[in-house]
Amino acid sequence: MRILGIDPGIGTCGFGLIETKSRADVRALDFGVITTTMNAPLPGRLLELYEGLTEIFTTCNPEVVSVEKLFFSKNITTGIAVAEARGLVLLVAAQNKIPVFEYTPNEIKKALTGYGAAGKPQMQEMVRVTLGLEKKPRPDDAADALAAAITHSLMKIS
Amino acid sequence: MRILGIDPGIGTCGFGLIETKSRADVRALDFGVITTTMNAPLPGRLLELYEGLTEIFTTCNPEVVSVEKLFFSKNITTGIAVAEARGLVLLVAAQNKIPVFEYTPNEIKKALTGYGAAGKPQMQEMVRVTLGLEKKPRPDDAADALAAAITHSLMKIS
Repeated sequence: MRILGIDPGIGTCGFGLIETKSRADVRALDFGVITTTMNAPLPGRLLELYEGLTEIFTTCNPEVVSVEKLFFSKNITTGIAVAEARGLVLLVAAQNKIPVFEYTPNEIKKALTGYGAAGKPQMQEMVRVTLGLEKKPRPDDAADALAAAITHSLMKIS
Repeated sequence: MRILGIDPGIGTCGFGLIETKSRADVRALDFGVITTTMNAPLPGRLLELYEGLTEIFTTCNPEVVSVEKLFFSKNITTGIAVAEARGLVLLVAAQNKIPVFEYTPNEIKKALTGYGAAGKPQMQEMVRVTLGLEKKPRPDDAADALAAAITHSLMKIS
């Protein structure tokens, strides 16, 4: 199954495409970030993001999308921007008729490390090991997107 | 100037188109709401909203869009949904190359009533009077959208 993980954001939106045949056979096909023009007005950045997402969905051709569920525990202003970006991710998924699954940050941490409060370095290391990569995937938003994709594979594939 | 006010929401998204020649000559051309299928999955509702907004922008043909700026003082869960819908509003504005102006709830209340903490009935009455309507515009989300549009006319037109 081809699973596209997405870490929504307006400035930087991470994506990570994995292919998984079993829990033991999970590999990364592609990952990276969509970036938008810093300091440009928000509507234009959302349009850049939308066009980037549309291209990613076309090139990645996923069967399923996995996205982190949103919580606003830390920073409300960032949270609003993430939610605006997230609306576009769900829209583009619907336009491409790809089902979306959502996981909380705790579910993602627990799925990868067995521990719901795992730190970023630990998470990134588990992404690296699970996908058999030589180095931790960069940038962070791409690693987060891969983590969301891996979580779906662990939850749904036996 | 044709100003399209929008009150973003996923279940119900209000819109209100006004034409204004001077501060004293402001009239409503069209208003109403886009509604999406209750209890349907979120990506599909966002797609319905996107298609509704695209149609509204085409039929209304506005020169400017006026949208309420988002604050999450009351309900965070509702706030996330509003932000997701708001992302789509800004996207469709950018796709149609229409400039967007944003006003805080307090700016809108103050522009219409002179009082930043005005209540809903007072706001709706001022929308009715300003536009010379016989009845208060219904539903509430359409009235809120018209209030955003009127605010822009009061701010920008001398």
